[in-house]
Amino acid sequence: MASVQASLRLIRLPFFRQNYGPRGLLRVDFFTPKPVGQTARHMSDVPPKSTNSGRSGWGKSSVWAPKTRLFIGIPFIGLLIYSMVTDDKPERLDGPSMAEKDALTKRESGITDQSPMRLRMEEFIKQHQKQIVAELEKIDGKPFHIDTWDRPQGGGGISCVLQEGNVFEKAGVNTSVVYGRLPRPAILKMRADHKALDPDVDSLPFFAAGLSLVLHPSNPMAPTVHLNYRYFETADEAGNTNAWWYGGGSDLTPSYLFDEDAIHFHNTIKTACDKHDKSYYPRFKKWCDEYFSNKHRGESRGIGGIFFDDLDNTEKDQEQLFAFVQDCLSAFLPSYIPIIKRRKDMPFTKKEKQWQQIRRGRYVEFNLVHDRGTAFGLNTPGSRVESILMSLPLTARWQYMHSPEKGSREERLVDVLKNPREWV
Amino acid sequence: MASVQASLRLIRLPFFRQNYGPRGLLRVDFFTPKPVGQTARHMSDVPPKSTNSGRSGWGKSSVWAPKTRLFIGIPFIGLLIYSMVTDDKPERLDGPSMAEKDALTKRESGITDQSPMRLRMEEFIKQHQKQIVAELEKIDGKPFHIDTWDRPQGGGGISCVLQEGNVFEKAGVNTSVVYGRLPRPAILKMRADHKALDPDVDSLPFFAAGLSLVLHPSNPMAPTVHLNYRYFETADEAGNTNAWWYGGGSDLTPSYLFDEDAIHFHNTIKTACDKHDKSYYPRFKKWCDEYFSNKHRGESRGIGGIFFDDLDNTEKDQEQLFAFVQDCLSAFLPSYIPIIKRRKDMPFTKKEKQWQQIRRGRYVEFNLVHDRGTAFGLNTPGSRVESILMSLPLTARWQYMHSPEKGSREERLVDVLKNPREWV
Repeated sequence: MASVQASLRLIRLPFFRQNYGPRGLLRVDFFTPKPVGQTARHMSDVPPKSTNSGRSGWGKSSVWAPKTRLFIGIPFIGLLIYSMVTDDKPERLDGPSMAEKDALTKRESGITDQSPMRLRMEEFIKQHQKQIVAELEKIDGKPFHIDTWDRPQGGGGISCVLQEGNVFEKAGVNTSVVYGRLPRPAILKMRADHKALDPDVDSLPFFAAGLSLVLHPSNPMAPTVHLNYRYFETADEAGNTNAWWYGGGSDLTPSYLFDEDAIHFHNTIKTACDKHDKSYYPRFKKWCDEYFSNKHRGESRGIGGIFFDDLDNTEKDQEQLFAFVQDCLSAFLPSYIPIIKRRKDMPFTKKEKQWQQIRRGRYVEFNLVHDRGTAFGLNTPGSRVESILMSLPLTARWQYMHSPEKGSREERLVDVLKNPREWV
Repeated sequence: MASVQASLRLIRLPFFRQNYGPRGLLRVDFFTPKPVGQTARHMSDVPPKSTNSGRSGWGKSSVWAPKTRLFIGIPFIGLLIYSMVTDDKPERLDGPSMAEKDALTKRESGITDQSPMRLRMEEFIKQHQKQIVAELEKIDGKPFHIDTWDRPQGGGGISCVLQEGNVFEKAGVNTSVVYGRLPRPAILKMRADHKALDPDVDSLPFFAAGLSLVLHPSNPMAPTVHLNYRYFETADEAGNTNAWWYGGGSDLTPSYLFDEDAIHFHNTIKTACDKHDKSYYPRFKKWCDEYFSNKHRGESRGIGGIFFDDLDNTEKDQEQLFAFVQDCLSAFLPSYIPIIKRRKDMPFTKKEKQWQQIRRGRYVEFNLVHDRGTAFGLNTPGSRVESILMSLPLTARWQYMHSPEKGSREERLVDVLKNPREWV
């Protein structure tokens, strides 16, 4: 086995323990965009793999498209962390790297059920991204702006953003795939949860892939939704998988609470969970309520959903967990589309729009004050801020001493946020 | 000297070292409002010390006035920290406390140049608060809502807030006076900068007083301004002053940069500084640029001003520093009023208002991500969030990948924020 001298910049990460991404991961890479393979286009026009064909809606069609030809894999913060701020070159190992092997596998035999999980996860999230974007475009009537990017070290991403649409004030649906190397301090930290990690090496190859989205609809009756599913693995120098785990979740943030929406959202997710383990929904619902909490206000960011991390072979085998994550992600459209359809055109007053703006302020507070991935990203020199802050709403409001009227719908929402409810 | 058993709740404060308030201060108190002495009124109507006389604009005149009958001493974050979340009762020492002695002095001989600095600072900031609020009311045409509060342990505050005025979208001018006890870990930390602190006691009486303001005008041509001046001291059990220091500063945050405004603002402050020490303005201007920086964007929050902390007898004697702080605070109205007067009624476009909203987003980012006082306050269980976040603008915007046009005024502002300039 080749001894590898990793050229890594280490970043101290004091509160990563409960982080959004893999725990204790300390490597942060600059993403150097590669001109080839980067296009801005509309997903409804062409599949992600095609090159620019000059069709309308492509390339220069967007005023900001050229600027987005960079990695914009947030709110998938966990992965962003590895891929933003390094200048290290593709490493030359004695044998082919994990990325090179995977590229070869894809070319020669395509992706099947026998392929490494890395490739199956990558294919799965990319398929789902296309499907989700296509569905959201149908609802909004305005196309997403799409950028693809490649990482010289292996991997890349597809970022789809819709701003000031007909239905969505701001929407982002992103996938990221990252091949990199984990430095020793990160390995030692991660061993707390993943005993398979070899504590005696200087660094280890790793792979991460995930899909992440945040949708902020314009209509105050329509809730904001956030989702993120990710897969992480480390390998030995021969490219054999070592430790691996899944993380993710999905949660809903209404400004006006419709019980039927909350019940439908939770029910759809619970059904997906129950297929795999009856304990999952209650465990991961609780985890979600605990994580997405504006502790300083004693209220949840929204009405929850599920959240989990570090699901590995101590939980279930890899096939079972992959099937679980697939079902969770597949449950997204059925969980949200009926809600957005019945809320997007509801009448609302100026006062209700203002309440939505105040709730958006709370969303900003959570993301800037409590979300560890965001905080870490912003405090990392050279990180791509626009990507990290893509999860923020277009507009927000802070009204001093605003307090909902007694007995109002606004007050009821706050009561529920202060005392998370069981919805199913 | 009596041995004192302090009933203190200690809060871990990992990054307090460069904090806004006194360093390493670990005591956090719940403020229990005292019914007597709390009024909501308009400062232009009556002096703060009078009681409710039933005049118009008093008591129930404001829909939110009853809710503000609590401590709202932020953005004076440094002081807020001591006075928000404790339930400890006034302590019974063997002799009269510092607060009791001061109350007696005030009653018996009033405040003169021979009074303790505590009382002189308190009187000075309260006078200036009245003057500033009166001046701002003249400009806005709408009265501030005023709340006073007393602390059972000694001290109190006056909070003046104006929201959705004619000129100011949101404006807060607050004074706070706090008598409390510093626990041992805080004393040990503070000793790094203040050798006079006795390291061999369990706790020490302390006093803090300050004035703080943030003004967010509606017109995008008119800049936001922030100011804070504070005095801190510790005493022995007999009430004799031990260590003491001053901190504070003032800085301007325009959305549209008018060089004459920047020059005027800095010039006025520099003149106040130069009267005391020619090194002050350059030193404290640099400190301001360094502190009020949105490091994640590589740009300053605004075009600066001055910022300083821990100025004690190793810098100059107490009278000299008090005179310096007095001149700085007295320079506020001359530094800002001419600017707001010439900008408040300027015509502006919808696009310019939108740019202001984007800049307000950056203000929110600084306050929520980088300002250590805010972060600490929000992460302190039981803190009064509305007070801490009073410094946030009424509205803000995050537009994905927004970038000023080449050669535009917006671009010029960003250039200056990326490369802080010398204005005088």
